[in-house]
Amino acid sequence: MSHVTDCNDDCDHSVKSKEFKLVQINGTWTRQGGDCGHSGRLSSATIFESSTANGLCWTVVSPIVFTYKIVQCENLLDPANDTLLFGHADNWKELKSHGKTIKRFIVIDETVHELYGDRITAYLKARNVTYKMLPLPTTEENKSMQLVMKILEEVHKFGIDRRSEPILAIGGGVCLDIVGLAASLYRRRTPYIRVPTTLLAYVDASVGAKNGVNFANCKNKLGGYIPPAAAFLDRSFLATVPRRHISNGLAEMLKMALMKHRGLFEILETKGTDLLESKFQTQGETETANRAQAASESTRIAIETMLEELAPNLWEDDLDRLVDFGHLISPELEMKVLPALLHGEAVNIDMSLMVYVARERGLLSPAETSRVIRCMQGLELPVWHGDCSLQLVRKALGERLRHSGGLVRMPLPTALGQAEIFNDTSDDTLCLAFQKWCEDLGAEHLPE
Amino acid sequence: MSHVTDCNDDCDHSVKSKEFKLVQINGTWTRQGGDCGHSGRLSSATIFESSTANGLCWTVVSPIVFTYKIVQCENLLDPANDTLLFGHADNWKELKSHGKTIKRFIVIDETVHELYGDRITAYLKARNVTYKMLPLPTTEENKSMQLVMKILEEVHKFGIDRRSEPILAIGGGVCLDIVGLAASLYRRRTPYIRVPTTLLAYVDASVGAKNGVNFANCKNKLGGYIPPAAAFLDRSFLATVPRRHISNGLAEMLKMALMKHRGLFEILETKGTDLLESKFQTQGETETANRAQAASESTRIAIETMLEELAPNLWEDDLDRLVDFGHLISPELEMKVLPALLHGEAVNIDMSLMVYVARERGLLSPAETSRVIRCMQGLELPVWHGDCSLQLVRKALGERLRHSGGLVRMPLPTALGQAEIFNDTSDDTLCLAFQKWCEDLGAEHLPE
Repeated sequence: MSHVTDCNDDCDHSVKSKEFKLVQINGTWTRQGGDCGHSGRLSSATIFESSTANGLCWTVVSPIVFTYKIVQCENLLDPANDTLLFGHADNWKELKSHGKTIKRFIVIDETVHELYGDRITAYLKARNVTYKMLPLPTTEENKSMQLVMKILEEVHKFGIDRRSEPILAIGGGVCLDIVGLAASLYRRRTPYIRVPTTLLAYVDASVGAKNGVNFANCKNKLGGYIPPAAAFLDRSFLATVPRRHISNGLAEMLKMALMKHRGLFEILETKGTDLLESKFQTQGETETANRAQAASESTRIAIETMLEELAPNLWEDDLDRLVDFGHLISPELEMKVLPALLHGEAVNIDMSLMVYVARERGLLSPAETSRVIRCMQGLELPVWHGDCSLQLVRKALGERLRHSGGLVRMPLPTALGQAEIFNDTSDDTLCLAFQKWCEDLGAEHLPE
Repeated sequence: MSHVTDCNDDCDHSVKSKEFKLVQINGTWTRQGGDCGHSGRLSSATIFESSTANGLCWTVVSPIVFTYKIVQCENLLDPANDTLLFGHADNWKELKSHGKTIKRFIVIDETVHELYGDRITAYLKARNVTYKMLPLPTTEENKSMQLVMKILEEVHKFGIDRRSEPILAIGGGVCLDIVGLAASLYRRRTPYIRVPTTLLAYVDASVGAKNGVNFANCKNKLGGYIPPAAAFLDRSFLATVPRRHISNGLAEMLKMALMKHRGLFEILETKGTDLLESKFQTQGETETANRAQAASESTRIAIETMLEELAPNLWEDDLDRLVDFGHLISPELEMKVLPALLHGEAVNIDMSLMVYVARERGLLSPAETSRVIRCMQGLELPVWHGDCSLQLVRKALGERLRHSGGLVRMPLPTALGQAEIFNDTSDDTLCLAFQKWCEDLGAEHLPE
């Protein structure tokens, strides 16, 4: 009845291995071997059974499907807009017609609460929502398990239905990361919704599955990969983000542009400064149509390219990741100079050096290299830093090697908007690139 | 190029939906619509894109495959046995031939450490392992996030490679649950290995994906579903388990027997008392062959039937679960009389009542009912409890209704070793069953 496989060389402990599919009949699951037709509900899970020298071994292979929505919309806080309450659900119409009281627990960054608290409250009241709003100081320094526990205590006190009442997180990346972890832990998984209020969170933290907190002085050392039920992206929140933090977000957009989208690079090159100036806002402006197109296209492409890279690798099992561009040296630099550099700024310094590495390797022409650097400067991002020494670069790449299965897995642009992963950048090439980088850009950017 | 689906009735906000597959070419993932042939690596993830009244919506559907091993073996602590160090890995031979120093962080229950610490140390020394052993009081009262954080601090201090150095947990269910959560959080997922030392953990906690801690006076309120890399099951640990705790584990075995395996029921019925007496040990005994067969068959079937039910539903998305038999009323009872009843004892009282419900519904004959109750008594499990009042039963079923999507989803035996899920047990039936249950069994078991 069952399929018998000969032992392969990799498993000398295994004498033979049988494969079983799982079929459910009348509510009971049973193992079924062989390729014979199955009547009943077939699971996508498989159980392998093998005998070993020391006993029996079962291997369970079970796929879990994660589904989440990213909704890019306007007027999220307009009481006429259903998105905030129902945008995560496929059965939106049904839920709305239920007429049941809606209950929501909301964690909000305290600065965001000062700016938008009244409008959010007005929305919730207009929609007759029973809610608890918890403003928290969601800064990098407070990004700890302690804050997660505080959220959990409040959630528990308030009481929510684990299946139908998602926790809302409204704020920057730190807020979304902390709430994501709290929700993932509560009753082994409670749905949550991300509403980013900074550009960095809008194009980065919102799009993927990662959540986490800092631990033992290490960034995001504890966390998980449970995606939100949905992320609701509304550009209007960016109006209140400081200019430097818009640049910060633009760095992650530039990352995706350099790795895989020439069109996005060209938007950032030609209209980046205007986007920074206008903070992606388009209401009540002249030239609105043109600017609106740049704002919506650039964010749309940033999200789409991110999703393309994240969706097939949601749990980061594949270590070769283009989205790691700008993230090989920057963690070391960011921790060293903290809090002098914002995340996107450190990422940009890393990318700037890597562009010189690409040039040194003949992947980019000098003209292309200059275009990239000029684009970065137009976005008001730092392109060099005195603390980013050759020693620090080598140390960071050593760490990378240790944590990436023995390969450095260095994403490098091979043209504008095109990239590959390289494992063979020699130390000589690195030195020459570093030297050229300092000569070209160092003089203008003395260490602070 | 892309496949356009008409909006269905469920999503009035969606105008049309395009489906994209993801294909990787030269290290870059791109979306590809339509059914045209794809060259390159195809992901199992899908992205749907739709326009809504308020903007754009992407739906990401991404399956993550969990793989883990359950190894039933003997002589786990014999230095000649590789299982403890390499049993989780497919590339066992390769790892062994590496000749690298092996590093392991071990969390062990402190009672288990007193009993087996020396032998484990001897094993690790004989195998030249660099290790840190952390004995902890892993009791129900200490099953908290605080203990998780303590483990994480020690893990961090010791330093492990997140990919190749799994954390070992040696102990009962509480120990395995706490370590599972700690490992799942560390660097967003560090592999861990379960080595159960009680019968309950052997047949229950080891087999599935769940981990967790208590919170706000609620059992396992915080946790997750990340399975271990492997569970190594060695019956010889049971030799030191107190008799009452063997009964405790037998209750969960009986659960699987009643739900789906008549053969296992018959082993427990005829040889259960002997298994309890011998604590599943077979070395140096007369009648060894016979007893060894009962011990190995009963545990094997318990694990196989558990795996059948868990593998297709690893994250408990399906609420109709046969493994919930005995777990509808017992949580309420267990919390009420804590610490008077062990988990398996409370489960058994619940099962005993449910068997009477099945009888009242005409699913089991009076003779079958008696056989089940006699079997329970042979396993020295309580079959009735004074605190399990009709009021408590109704309250527990009300809670169940609330947390199970509005249906009670009551698993009931429909024969010995066969079951279905029922949602239509009337209160009258429940009352009659409860009354008969008390008449038959209550007199002998006065409330403590």
